[in-house]
Amino acid sequence: MKYAIEKLGDATVLSPLGLSLLNGDGIANFIEDSKRIVVDANFSNWHQYHESGKEPDTFEAAGPREKIFFDPATVRAAIVTCGGLCPGLNDVIRALVMTLHYRYGVRDILGVRYGYRGMTLHYGGTAIPLTPELVVDIHTRGGTFLGSSRGPQSVVEMVDFLQRRSINMLFTLGGDGTIRGAIEIAEESRKRNLNISVVGIPKTIDNDIAFIDRSFGFSSAVAKAKEIIDAAHAEARGAPYGIGLVKLMGRRSGFIAARASLASGDVNCVLVPEVKFELDGNNGFFKWLETRLEQRHHALIVAAEGAGEDLMANKNNTRETDASGNVRLVDIGIFLKDEINEHFKKLSRDVTLKYFDPSYLIRSTTANAEDSVFCSELAQHAVHAAFSGRTAMLIGTWNNHFVHLPMSLTISKRKTLDPDGLEWLSVVENTGQPPRMTN
Amino acid sequence: MKYAIEKLGDATVLSPLGLSLLNGDGIANFIEDSKRIVVDANFSNWHQYHESGKEPDTFEAAGPREKIFFDPATVRAAIVTCGGLCPGLNDVIRALVMTLHYRYGVRDILGVRYGYRGMTLHYGGTAIPLTPELVVDIHTRGGTFLGSSRGPQSVVEMVDFLQRRSINMLFTLGGDGTIRGAIEIAEESRKRNLNISVVGIPKTIDNDIAFIDRSFGFSSAVAKAKEIIDAAHAEARGAPYGIGLVKLMGRRSGFIAARASLASGDVNCVLVPEVKFELDGNNGFFKWLETRLEQRHHALIVAAEGAGEDLMANKNNTRETDASGNVRLVDIGIFLKDEINEHFKKLSRDVTLKYFDPSYLIRSTTANAEDSVFCSELAQHAVHAAFSGRTAMLIGTWNNHFVHLPMSLTISKRKTLDPDGLEWLSVVENTGQPPRMTN
Amino acid sequence: MKYAIEKLGDATVLSPLGLSLLNGDGIANFIEDSKRIVVDANFSNWHQYHESGKEPDTFEAAGPREKIFFDPATVRAAIVTCGGLCPGLNDVIRALVMTLHYRYGVRDILGVRYGYRGMTLHYGGTAIPLTPELVVDIHTRGGTFLGSSRGPQSVVEMVDFLQRRSINMLFTLGGDGTIRGAIEIAEESRKRNLNISVVGIPKTIDNDIAFIDRSFGFSSAVAKAKEIIDAAHAEARGAPYGIGLVKLMGRRSGFIAARASLASGDVNCVLVPEVKFELDGNNGFFKWLETRLEQRHHALIVAAEGAGEDLMANKNNTRETDASGNVRLVDIGIFLKDEINEHFKKLSRDVTLKYFDPSYLIRSTTANAEDSVFCSELAQHAVHAAFSGRTAMLIGTWNNHFVHLPMSLTISKRKTLDPDGLEWLSVVENTGQPPRMTN
Amino acid sequence: MKYAIEKLGDATVLSPLGLSLLNGDGIANFIEDSKRIVVDANFSNWHQYHESGKEPDTFEAAGPREKIFFDPATVRAAIVTCGGLCPGLNDVIRALVMTLHYRYGVRDILGVRYGYRGMTLHYGGTAIPLTPELVVDIHTRGGTFLGSSRGPQSVVEMVDFLQRRSINMLFTLGGDGTIRGAIEIAEESRKRNLNISVVGIPKTIDNDIAFIDRSFGFSSAVAKAKEIIDAAHAEARGAPYGIGLVKLMGRRSGFIAARASLASGDVNCVLVPEVKFELDGNNGFFKWLETRLEQRHHALIVAAEGAGEDLMANKNNTRETDASGNVRLVDIGIFLKDEINEHFKKLSRDVTLKYFDPSYLIRSTTANAEDSVFCSELAQHAVHAAFSGRTAMLIGTWNNHFVHLPMSLTISKRKTLDPDGLEWLSVVENTGQPPRMTN
Repeated sequence: MKYAIEKLGDATVLSPLGLSLLNGDGIANFIEDSKRIVVDANFSNWHQYHESGKEPDTFEAAGPREKIFFDPATVRAAIVTCGGLCPGLNDVIRALVMTLHYRYGVRDILGVRYGYRGMTLHYGGTAIPLTPELVVDIHTRGGTFLGSSRGPQSVVEMVDFLQRRSINMLFTLGGDGTIRGAIEIAEESRKRNLNISVVGIPKTIDNDIAFIDRSFGFSSAVAKAKEIIDAAHAEARGAPYGIGLVKLMGRRSGFIAARASLASGDVNCVLVPEVKFELDGNNGFFKWLETRLEQRHHALIVAAEGAGEDLMANKNNTRETDASGNVRLVDIGIFLKDEINEHFKKLSRDVTLKYFDPSYLIRSTTANAEDSVFCSELAQHAVHAAFSGRTAMLIGTWNNHFVHLPMSLTISKRKTLDPDGLEWLSVVENTGQPPRMTN
Repeated sequence: MKYAIEKLGDATVLSPLGLSLLNGDGIANFIEDSKRIVVDANFSNWHQYHESGKEPDTFEAAGPREKIFFDPATVRAAIVTCGGLCPGLNDVIRALVMTLHYRYGVRDILGVRYGYRGMTLHYGGTAIPLTPELVVDIHTRGGTFLGSSRGPQSVVEMVDFLQRRSINMLFTLGGDGTIRGAIEIAEESRKRNLNISVVGIPKTIDNDIAFIDRSFGFSSAVAKAKEIIDAAHAEARGAPYGIGLVKLMGRRSGFIAARASLASGDVNCVLVPEVKFELDGNNGFFKWLETRLEQRHHALIVAAEGAGEDLMANKNNTRETDASGNVRLVDIGIFLKDEINEHFKKLSRDVTLKYFDPSYLIRSTTANAEDSVFCSELAQHAVHAAFSGRTAMLIGTWNNHFVHLPMSLTISKRKTLDPDGLEWLSVVENTGQPPRMTN
Repeated sequence: MKYAIEKLGDATVLSPLGLSLLNGDGIANFIEDSKRIVVDANFSNWHQYHESGKEPDTFEAAGPREKIFFDPATVRAAIVTCGGLCPGLNDVIRALVMTLHYRYGVRDILGVRYGYRGMTLHYGGTAIPLTPELVVDIHTRGGTFLGSSRGPQSVVEMVDFLQRRSINMLFTLGGDGTIRGAIEIAEESRKRNLNISVVGIPKTIDNDIAFIDRSFGFSSAVAKAKEIIDAAHAEARGAPYGIGLVKLMGRRSGFIAARASLASGDVNCVLVPEVKFELDGNNGFFKWLETRLEQRHHALIVAAEGAGEDLMANKNNTRETDASGNVRLVDIGIFLKDEINEHFKKLSRDVTLKYFDPSYLIRSTTANAEDSVFCSELAQHAVHAAFSGRTAMLIGTWNNHFVHLPMSLTISKRKTLDPDGLEWLSVVENTGQPPRMTN
Repeated sequence: MKYAIEKLGDATVLSPLGLSLLNGDGIANFIEDSKRIVVDANFSNWHQYHESGKEPDTFEAAGPREKIFFDPATVRAAIVTCGGLCPGLNDVIRALVMTLHYRYGVRDILGVRYGYRGMTLHYGGTAIPLTPELVVDIHTRGGTFLGSSRGPQSVVEMVDFLQRRSINMLFTLGGDGTIRGAIEIAEESRKRNLNISVVGIPKTIDNDIAFIDRSFGFSSAVAKAKEIIDAAHAEARGAPYGIGLVKLMGRRSGFIAARASLASGDVNCVLVPEVKFELDGNNGFFKWLETRLEQRHHALIVAAEGAGEDLMANKNNTRETDASGNVRLVDIGIFLKDEINEHFKKLSRDVTLKYFDPSYLIRSTTANAEDSVFCSELAQHAVHAAFSGRTAMLIGTWNNHFVHLPMSLTISKRKTLDPDGLEWLSVVENTGQPPRMTN
């Protein structure tokens, strides 16, 4: 099956990029619409495919097209960043502006302030014109030059904003919620017969958007998280029966915890939402920790924030409720810290636990070189996609190729760490933790 | 076509890893021999395949096997690092030792000193036993803990070395020459009926080994190169008509130059071996540089060491010969520096050119987090492959999956930057340099 | 007045260092006992001195002596690290070992595990012999290679430990409490007629030990704290009415908060224990913050942990007590975070406050180059001092010169930021905060 | 003797800073003109002073004055950066602008482009107005935002430039040559009865300006140099008989070489201009190197660029002359590299020497936190000094206090490493190199 991308109309304008369609002329090529990337690179079952005659699933390849939909002279673009901070936001903004300006000659680029909020009636006047001079150095700082905010806004007001300012390209940088908003904006624009291309650059520091190899900022987040783990390691080794406990981002997916622990090479146990564990019992976490401390005198533990939710649910039953009677959800980091301390207190064994909760620190770091390259490429492909008239789509990489992804597909499910897969295996091998910590 | 991997014999021993073959049990899985990864993920031509009935090319997937060839109790492993330095060598050494020791229980691990030389008769006695304690912190330093050297050695002496010490697993970290040596060692072992598994971890800071998405150390090298480019940028901006010129590694392939320039976002022109350019003429490099300096007062140029070889060949004809009458090969960096200075001198225009040649600095840096993860995974898969009885193969990633590659295949050609491809296109778009600088 | 340093006896042994006493021979010189450094470099009141005939206060200069007290062949040294982590501990340990081993030929060096605790009867057996090979790379990691612990131990047991092992040099790395312990050890040794030189390298990440220009690790701590402030800045700028709030170390002295804020250049308000402030009122902190947010839409605030204690005391009166009825001391960071949020809630104004508490992260970082040099010098001078037979003293720098300080003097008072001085002035000028925030 | 600072006239305007003169009021204080810092903190010879009645030499303390010379409303300031790049230039520019603008309310600040050249008739029109918005992020990049150039310019034209634009404060960032130029500008202004305050912030990456504890950028340069040394160390350890050779800045003074080697802790030999050495003979460098390689199999050497000039002079006599017959001066790095290779070739011993020449890389780096603080303080004190009407002076630190230095004094001699002093001693102890390498 060929995953289809929505288009505003026929592409009839000649691209100003000056590339070629010829191989071997030393000039980079336009990409043909027919180029497609296979979804499942695992070809163990080729014969099955062949015999069934069923076409393997494929995504459309990204890249500049020879014929484009928009006449560059008529383009007014807008950029908006939504949700939490993520390394590389400024790199993407910068590269969008540079590509629009220098490659396609777009002179009208608007920066929306503080997320979707900045497109509403009340705040719509705060948007600022973006130029190469203004954005040339913004990537030397973390965060987002445009500001961000959370939460949905009136789609009517947002499309009013675009319509009023004759904007025909909207680049949205954000995660799940932002993508949902972008889909609505694309729909509302279609209803109004506005030719607005809505192209998203998926932002998720947790790397948990489906059908995307990796998201920008993830490499930088892992690198920063690794630094924190190093610090926790020093604390663990520095005290008698020292325990370093690091909580990292990852409400549903443990990618940062897993990769950062692999990067460190010093972590003894990684806890992620995808793999259940128990605290008590012969195969439980506490038993493992007791043994570890006895043998090696220190322990280094990394927990993704969504790990062990079932354990806390149990605890929560018997715990505090807030004024409205709602169970107060306990943070896994604080929870583990308290449980570990309590456990060893009961055993009358002195341990020194140091707890690290570095989330804001990680997400606000600048992009590393790996992400800078990636952000630059994502932005370029987003601009090419928008110029080709595509809409309601994301730029992503899949099997190491840049592709166009229907927005609706990417929010249909969430990418998680496969407990049966190679990546988790590497973690288990690297830490030496028990393959299973349930009884 | 299924690319086949040579095996020493049937795998009949049960793996000690304690993994499962079941999905959904929360325990990471063994990998089945039948799992294969498609070579060409571009499926534009699916129907062609389907109609021809020709099977798409595939590589064998890497990963731990349930049944292995070697009884861990009998394994004696050796590790050797060859050729120039590369970020991550110590990470790979460390992870090999950790995986052999902790996962498979191997207690005999030998570190060969100073490359293949350390396996020869003369130097064979210098090898050192490797333990987790010894290697636990080596990745905090660049270079190779074992030392390295260049050049081929007597295959007979090297296999004598392995035979004499009853070594049955050899892990080779090196590039082209090292892989050729490893193939010979595997062949000679086979002739002698020695069951020695020879598994390579491909090392090429230039990222130019065929059928490998990326090589370890490449990410770190790009990050370091980006720092140098930042410095050259400061020099270029700091002087009237300042020119920053950075020579980076890449004799045949311009990957580091291309990626580091993308990471910087400030480079104005990238010169690589794969894309020809001329100095003179209306479309030439000098004309571009003159315009750039006039308009923006500074310029930042990155050249891969193999760029412009044809230009230097011409120059070399009319230039100095050394004492023995050999033409003295000119370095592209020095060459460009001299030519640019000469050119503007002729035009009576003052320029201030600062030249950077940071190769040793780049290759001797420590691995960044991205590479640390990757080195750890490569080492784990190398150990799994060796235990499964595979030999004369490399561990690599292709289409984002870890695979087994026949050594002979990877040296059959060299990976280069495709001048018609997306990666080069991104560079051209990012720098704004002319798509073609020939007349 | 000449501050005197206690000595074990006459120095009669010729130093093995091979230095000279001659200027101009190109060989570094021994330092003469008569060299002294003035305490107060401010000479506004020279005439007063001169007329009174009173000698200005001076410290003894550090450095290697030509005649030493201990015969190197008889020396058994021990090193102990106490209290919280601090960048550079491993650099000092390494340099102590290197200087003892290579410069003075000492072959018996003992590393005490986990602070003074490791010198007690129960744990005294855990000490490990230190060699150059063992410590050569330890400075690439943060923390302390030897481990540390808090709290006083039996001085009798500790001197028993030294006596039993014939240790005649003890190097103590620690702060106030450690120095007090060291004084007791020196006294007890004297009572037992043991010739044990006890030399301290003052460790205080807060830089608050009296008569010491700066302490090792302070530069690294400031650099790391600056990184956190950068992150908080990104968070503040990234949200509508964003507030970044960073709590840094400094219970009694605000040096880290002050210096790190200066290093950042982006901080808008620094709160330290030495300068009182009020929250309410026309000149209070809240009024300032309201104005700042109105005008600039974000604010970046740094608070030393000991700031505003009087404010919390008031709050604490009316607040929670724990199970035992003790008032629960509120953390300034949490306190300010809550108060600010409450304040703006009352005003019905949305603010987005992100709180950073990075203490463990800062203290466990590796030493930067500045501190590496400093640690190396401190360790060398500590060894010289011990060999010269001095005891109950610290190595420090004063007016940019290395000096010997009587231990008792350094704990007689605490160094604090002078609210009337230049350093605080620089902060006020840099942040633009009101010189006074009291009514 | 009191070193006197030239003043433009009486200070009669009340400072707008809002500080106090009272101690204990919690408001930072103005500094009184009478505050002075002693030049020689070594008080071994106090009695001599006392008996002679001779006043010890002192410098005037820096800091804001209660009464100032210039009415802020009338101030037009200019900033110029001259000579080679140095870390921190942008930090100083930024802090000058911030202090002038926010503290004293100056609205006319001019940035001179490309050094003194930008004040000449031909280029005088290129200067740009500086505002807080423009400079707020410039310190995230190395180099100088204003550009720089070398060489003297017509003092008449430069003062014309100042006069034409009614500039009454000139801040010069530069070394020896720049200071000489600034003295001339101050003199010429005086002749023309112009009240122009010329205040210099001394810039010397070599840290070789007299009467200045340390210069801005030095700490960052040392830190970067240490990174290069780490790389050379990896290369040295990575090859059989590997030699890492690093040339660092320092034509007359070996401070960077000395400090960076101390910071590394891995260097085996440091060569500086201040300490002579010979290559041959029993006590020569080669003999030491042979022994080192035999015993430890690798060696790490750091040479300041001005080291061994006498050796090269000999060599130069017998070497190449250029087209005009001038002896071609040999670079110490290249010279040593060639000599070492030749020497071991003669001995038929294989060595692998890797040579590093990182000067541009070091000087173009960004300021570290240590230097950021320092640059900020220097700039603040420079503005205070200018407002107080002082001229022809530099801001520096001496004995850890900020002071005013007469420009003429600082160029009267050069600061060098004292071969008999503690700093060089630390190097000798740290490297273990022979105290003397002459025969």
